[in-house]
Amino acid sequence: MTSVIVGAYQTKFGELWDVGLADLLTEAGWGAMKDAGVSADEIEMTLVGNKLSGKVVGQDHLGALVKETLGTGGPTLRVEAACASGGVAVHQAVAAVEAGQIDCALVIGVEKMTDVDVDTITWGLMGAASAAERGAGLSFVGLYALMAQAYMGEYGAGAKDLAQVAVKNHFHGSFNEKAQFRFPITVEDVLHSSIVANPLKLLDCSPITDGAAAVVVMSQKLAAKKGLLTSSIRVVGSGLANETLSLAARTSLTQIKSTQEAAKKAYAQAGFGPDMVDLAEVHDCFTIAEILAVEDLGFYKKGTGYVVQGNGEVRLGGKRPINLSGGLKACGHPVGATGVKQVVEIVTQLRDSAGKRQVTGARVGLTHNVGGTGGTAVVHLLAKN
Amino acid sequence: MTSVIVGAYQTKFGELWDVGLADLLTEAGWGAMKDAGVSADEIEMTLVGNKLSGKVVGQDHLGALVKETLGTGGPTLRVEAACASGGVAVHQAVAAVEAGQIDCALVIGVEKMTDVDVDTITWGLMGAASAAERGAGLSFVGLYALMAQAYMGEYGAGAKDLAQVAVKNHFHGSFNEKAQFRFPITVEDVLHSSIVANPLKLLDCSPITDGAAAVVVMSQKLAAKKGLLTSSIRVVGSGLANETLSLAARTSLTQIKSTQEAAKKAYAQAGFGPDMVDLAEVHDCFTIAEILAVEDLGFYKKGTGYVVQGNGEVRLGGKRPINLSGGLKACGHPVGATGVKQVVEIVTQLRDSAGKRQVTGARVGLTHNVGGTGGTAVVHLLAKN
Repeated sequence: MTSVIVGAYQTKFGELWDVGLADLLTEAGWGAMKDAGVSADEIEMTLVGNKLSGKVVGQDHLGALVKETLGTGGPTLRVEAACASGGVAVHQAVAAVEAGQIDCALVIGVEKMTDVDVDTITWGLMGAASAAERGAGLSFVGLYALMAQAYMGEYGAGAKDLAQVAVKNHFHGSFNEKAQFRFPITVEDVLHSSIVANPLKLLDCSPITDGAAAVVVMSQKLAAKKGLLTSSIRVVGSGLANETLSLAARTSLTQIKSTQEAAKKAYAQAGFGPDMVDLAEVHDCFTIAEILAVEDLGFYKKGTGYVVQGNGEVRLGGKRPINLSGGLKACGHPVGATGVKQVVEIVTQLRDSAGKRQVTGARVGLTHNVGGTGGTAVVHLLAKN
Repeated sequence: MTSVIVGAYQTKFGELWDVGLADLLTEAGWGAMKDAGVSADEIEMTLVGNKLSGKVVGQDHLGALVKETLGTGGPTLRVEAACASGGVAVHQAVAAVEAGQIDCALVIGVEKMTDVDVDTITWGLMGAASAAERGAGLSFVGLYALMAQAYMGEYGAGAKDLAQVAVKNHFHGSFNEKAQFRFPITVEDVLHSSIVANPLKLLDCSPITDGAAAVVVMSQKLAAKKGLLTSSIRVVGSGLANETLSLAARTSLTQIKSTQEAAKKAYAQAGFGPDMVDLAEVHDCFTIAEILAVEDLGFYKKGTGYVVQGNGEVRLGGKRPINLSGGLKACGHPVGATGVKQVVEIVTQLRDSAGKRQVTGARVGLTHNVGGTGGTAVVHLLAKN
């Protein structure tokens, strides 16, 4: 792989009622270009990851919006793959740089979710599931609850094990000034929160969030020419894979094959396996999702990923910390932005710039972004130069 | 350029109340693969162009839907650039093949528009314009009416000249069994139809349409290996360019710079100019748009593109026929499908398979797809082997 990340930026995540979609998109885009030290006309392609703006804000055509607000050079377009839109945008940018199409791309993930009522946002999010699932009255919590029930029945995990994921991620989020939730919670808090779809309770769920994130992807060649190579973070793997849209069309509810396949591709490109990964940002839209993820990514054997959630191993200071940003659970989940934010967090860590949540000596980080219940999955491997 | 089109398919366009989004997408995808003689597992990437399905059908995440219904190999994802979504999807597939990332891609453009009320669809379409334009109460007919007024004032074109575009495209559409409207109209019909936004009347406007189209893009190398090269259609140019989202941010209302830039790129790749083009499918969402297009594409000097509309030059049998499919006006405009359908039409013509609307001896065709009022433009040049 010959592409590197030279700029990264995340806006505050939260209920940002005083800013709009264009403000968030612009702040993130400028932020990443400024961080990289590149100007708008040096950008040769801009990819925007977004799921909901057409429905929620009434704004599509974000490529042309970028042209108007940021004035970046080259083509601009939007890609959409539900909650993996951001990760897919990064993947497409990396693919274009790797193939030699371009030398410098801007990727922006953005979502504005909190300005509409809960029915609009719930129905909007269900666009990531199948018509049959929507017709059956399932919400996304309901779909992941089915996966959680199957997992708990098959492997003996309990509600407390799931709760540990949320507790850990809130602990991490308390150190992240960009996070939506910056307060720690306890296992009891989770267990005593309202049931949304059994066994998932309110505090097993990621929130509804506004926010944006952006990165500048560059070829090593151009980065070297511009004196940016030494400080850049290398992209050593980028895998994108898909699965059926609906759970009913799959043979197992306790694994996500697209995650496994995307990870396999990324590890093959990197030339190493999961043991080399020092830290990861994984897709914890619900607590069960993080447990499935750490197994499907090869960190733990199937059926054992829940055991480590409470023992410190995946917590700051542990062997391989997971979701130091706070994850989707505590940092927030502006769906189109999440996959880009994960890359921003890993870049921040590999630059030793993560402050109180810094992992000492981190050299290799992984990001894992999922669309829907796994219809799309994207895995990136990033390494310190 | 080293990519070719080996398969092409268009569904019927129209008010298709008995089929849904997934039906259209699947029919088009299978149709193109069957036409090419390739199986789903030979596809290495699937790109779906769509603008409105999240808002109108409640269905996003079309990449995963494709995985479920068609089971194509490799990554699948959706790209969106308003009414240029289909053209951008073709461009991205060609770019991936040109760069050597993949050897075989399926591109599907799809839109389901007629199952909702007119306010929903009008508001959905306005997502392709800016917030300020929406806030000012403008519709897309209103925006193009501003461009028409500027053009008519600047160059002396009259309502009759605009009407000739619709008359010609309805004439062409009468020969196309896939077209939404298959009846000829007269200049008087157009002039006596209701004013929607002065000077544009009902018959100056393209309709609201359901439909899908798909193509299989392949590397010459793989096509040769599979014995498909001789019968394939070469992609000799593929340009994508962008402009500001809003009209107010531009210096001229009588030209679309993104069209000019996309055409310039495509001609440079092809190594020839507009004089070599035998026929074209251009973006006639409103009659004024076709007049601007034939000028911005270099077929006619600025301010003269309206003169030829009634004299037979751009009609079947003329020097360089435009919109033989019937264009957006008569074939219909399922927005995400249009850019792909244009490629299907040119492929059909270059294969000498266009029946009663066949252009004799056609060797080079051009497609031109616009998003919004020009925030995105895509130009493809296709040539007979």
